[in-house]
Amino acid sequence: MAARCDSLIMSRIEAPRDETTGNLLDRLLSALPAEAVLTDPDVTASYANDMASFCDAGAPAVVVLPRTVEQVQHVLRTATELRVPVVPQGARTGLSGGANATDGCIVLSLVKMDRILEINPVDRVAVVEPGVINAALSRAVNEHGLYYPPDPSSWEMCTIGGNIGTASGGLCCVKYGVTAEYVLGLDVVLADGRLMSTGRRTAKGVAGYDLTRLFVGSEGSLGIVVRAVLGLRPQPPQQLVLAAEFASTDAACDAICRIMEGGHVPSLLELMDRTTVKAVNDLARMGLPESTEALLLAAFDTPDPAADLAAVGALCEAAGATQVVPAEDAAESELLLQARRLSLTALEAVKGTTMIDDVCVPRSKLGAMLAGVERIAAKYGLTIGVCAHAGDGNTHPTVCFDAADPDESRRARESFDEIMGLGLELGGTITGEHGVGILKKEWMARELGPVGMEMQRAVKAVFDPLGILNPGKLF
Amino acid sequence: MAARCDSLIMSRIEAPRDETTGNLLDRLLSALPAEAVLTDPDVTASYANDMASFCDAGAPAVVVLPRTVEQVQHVLRTATELRVPVVPQGARTGLSGGANATDGCIVLSLVKMDRILEINPVDRVAVVEPGVINAALSRAVNEHGLYYPPDPSSWEMCTIGGNIGTASGGLCCVKYGVTAEYVLGLDVVLADGRLMSTGRRTAKGVAGYDLTRLFVGSEGSLGIVVRAVLGLRPQPPQQLVLAAEFASTDAACDAICRIMEGGHVPSLLELMDRTTVKAVNDLARMGLPESTEALLLAAFDTPDPAADLAAVGALCEAAGATQVVPAEDAAESELLLQARRLSLTALEAVKGTTMIDDVCVPRSKLGAMLAGVERIAAKYGLTIGVCAHAGDGNTHPTVCFDAADPDESRRARESFDEIMGLGLELGGTITGEHGVGILKKEWMARELGPVGMEMQRAVKAVFDPLGILNPGKLF
Repeated sequence: MAARCDSLIMSRIEAPRDETTGNLLDRLLSALPAEAVLTDPDVTASYANDMASFCDAGAPAVVVLPRTVEQVQHVLRTATELRVPVVPQGARTGLSGGANATDGCIVLSLVKMDRILEINPVDRVAVVEPGVINAALSRAVNEHGLYYPPDPSSWEMCTIGGNIGTASGGLCCVKYGVTAEYVLGLDVVLADGRLMSTGRRTAKGVAGYDLTRLFVGSEGSLGIVVRAVLGLRPQPPQQLVLAAEFASTDAACDAICRIMEGGHVPSLLELMDRTTVKAVNDLARMGLPESTEALLLAAFDTPDPAADLAAVGALCEAAGATQVVPAEDAAESELLLQARRLSLTALEAVKGTTMIDDVCVPRSKLGAMLAGVERIAAKYGLTIGVCAHAGDGNTHPTVCFDAADPDESRRARESFDEIMGLGLELGGTITGEHGVGILKKEWMARELGPVGMEMQRAVKAVFDPLGILNPGKLF
Repeated sequence: MAARCDSLIMSRIEAPRDETTGNLLDRLLSALPAEAVLTDPDVTASYANDMASFCDAGAPAVVVLPRTVEQVQHVLRTATELRVPVVPQGARTGLSGGANATDGCIVLSLVKMDRILEINPVDRVAVVEPGVINAALSRAVNEHGLYYPPDPSSWEMCTIGGNIGTASGGLCCVKYGVTAEYVLGLDVVLADGRLMSTGRRTAKGVAGYDLTRLFVGSEGSLGIVVRAVLGLRPQPPQQLVLAAEFASTDAACDAICRIMEGGHVPSLLELMDRTTVKAVNDLARMGLPESTEALLLAAFDTPDPAADLAAVGALCEAAGATQVVPAEDAAESELLLQARRLSLTALEAVKGTTMIDDVCVPRSKLGAMLAGVERIAAKYGLTIGVCAHAGDGNTHPTVCFDAADPDESRRARESFDEIMGLGLELGGTITGEHGVGILKKEWMARELGPVGMEMQRAVKAVFDPLGILNPGKLF
């Protein structure tokens, strides 16, 4: 560790630096330990990007890894004084470029602030720092018989701070909702370094405007979350999964509508189209049925999941399912879920690169959405696999392309955009859970309209009058 | 109706009016039908107050009852042009003075915009105007097998717009959360009359800052909600209620902690103290056990509520319950709930007037809260009954006093404030579900601190730069 620090310090001293950067580093180091300040260009370059395609990233002037609230405050005070942009980062698993660096910025990585400060089973809350890994929190609360539902696909890597920044979702949302619904209160370092507490640690609370919720999904553009009070639920019974095959996506979507209209509350209701099923088989030899046009996975974590699966299976059959297979036990259920969780990785393997749309439509419009994506794929001559949190109407049409082929890349970007246009036409949103970042800025303006955008910008200006917080994102 | 309109028009013409008011009325009437504009001082005076004690109210210049979005826009444009304050109102069942008129204001009553525009069982949403009565919506969605959970005590009278304005709760919150969690999207008329849409009608959506949530609980101070997309749930099974008697509030609070720590999810978990039980008996001869120090009501709307009640009953006994009585059926359950619902009315009958606190504490602090309220009641020589949404830690200590007695009134106000101070000391909030209004302005500042208040005011200024929207509330 000491050797690593030395080499970093040396690189800081030795790296060619202009006066501005020198001044910035001196100010930062006046209240930060040397090991929290990275300047080696090879190292800082590795912090430039999240996992989105087609998003520009600049070269950070410095990467800072604070361990305390006071250190974050010092970074923000310094940034305000010197008018230096600050790009906050968690695990950089985001898919919209929301964590991409800008030239000369301070990358503020919160990953070292990773303590779980409290888990309280009576109050059903956890208090955490932003760098806590989602899965680490989930496991820690499980030990107390508690459940933190939000489960983005990247849950083994992504941080709670990142989840809050993007208001991320996951497989659980159809029953348990998104991250936003579990954030009760926040400590936030403002652009000028002052600390603000929002919200509460109680079950309810309505004193003043809900600034907590304003920060959730704000992609680091309003302030830096340094502590969160999260609501927890009691751990539900182990869920049991059913798989249903359909000869058309239309029939699968009809089944989804019947399930939701029938008053069922599945803990998971996912769809994989033929392209996705094939990709998963190709990658992992899962033995999924490739003759199917759409594979539906439904799960229940109720006291009698087998009964619920039977009812839902009957609805699938009524909608024309060609085969309905309820898992016998947890192990079989897990196998089916693994197939779903592999979807994005498998689609990435098809052509080397993907662009993952995140369009959410009213679930009654899911059939129209999937039909439209198929048309768009044909129009652009591209492979577009769809997996979807179908119970939420949240689709992830995933454009597979060869990034080395300029024409295919152009078509990929155009089809990606056209899919968002289709989502808006169907009364949906351009992003259900991945956020706007750099990738969807123009589309956010289209979704919100001029009045909405004016008010969004005005809110941004309240919290970030100098425009130093994650500039170039959202707007 | 025509006769009524005529007399209103005459009163408008005949009432002595200064130039400013005359100009205002002329402008309003240029795009509003005469029957939507009330100026008879006797009539307008009846719109001056909500149901809070100790809150000043002014004399409105005019009461406007629009029926369309365009009419609301016209009112706001006029108000901006002439710099006239606008006080939005629903059914005026609020308990914090949030709907009280200011001198010379336009009271904007939304009660005539009371259409349910859509109920969609597949998308599980309802689209409503703000004047829809809570109970009317509940019944309408029930007919589709759906459930709109928020159920404030005033649900037979209060409007959805008012519920959104105050982010109101109810008995259901311990399982189903508050109003905020059911508001997916809004159409809002801004201070200058422009129309803004926020949010979505999809299950998920994260495009931009969550302005929807910012408006929920904003007490009409940021804009006028003219349309709301509300999330719905499938209707759960009929709940079954259990009553448990305790020889001390401490034992009852211990039971509550055991129930929540044990992972149970009751659909209702309410507490009535001895004072409240006696008041209910005095009012309605309910035959509740007056020897009890605390009566706990728990309910489950699960597939097997009797089993859940048995488990919770055992936990109550372990905590020292002197008697545990599960209801045999829906009728017995309803009787127990009626007693709870009568609590506030019954406490009002004790001395003629009440002030109802709304302090929410972490539920692990509920015992300390109730003990503190007892101390405060003794200190001030007052009757303070407590009923509580105990599962949420949301207490309603209700100060009973004779408003004609100045000294008792002073003590009532002081004890009311001291209870809020106690709530803050215990890590709670001054308002769990009733809002801030006029009554708790100073206390909101104390809860949020100077930095929080500065940002709250700055957000207010974004949406209401002229300060015409419900002035004197919150701040």
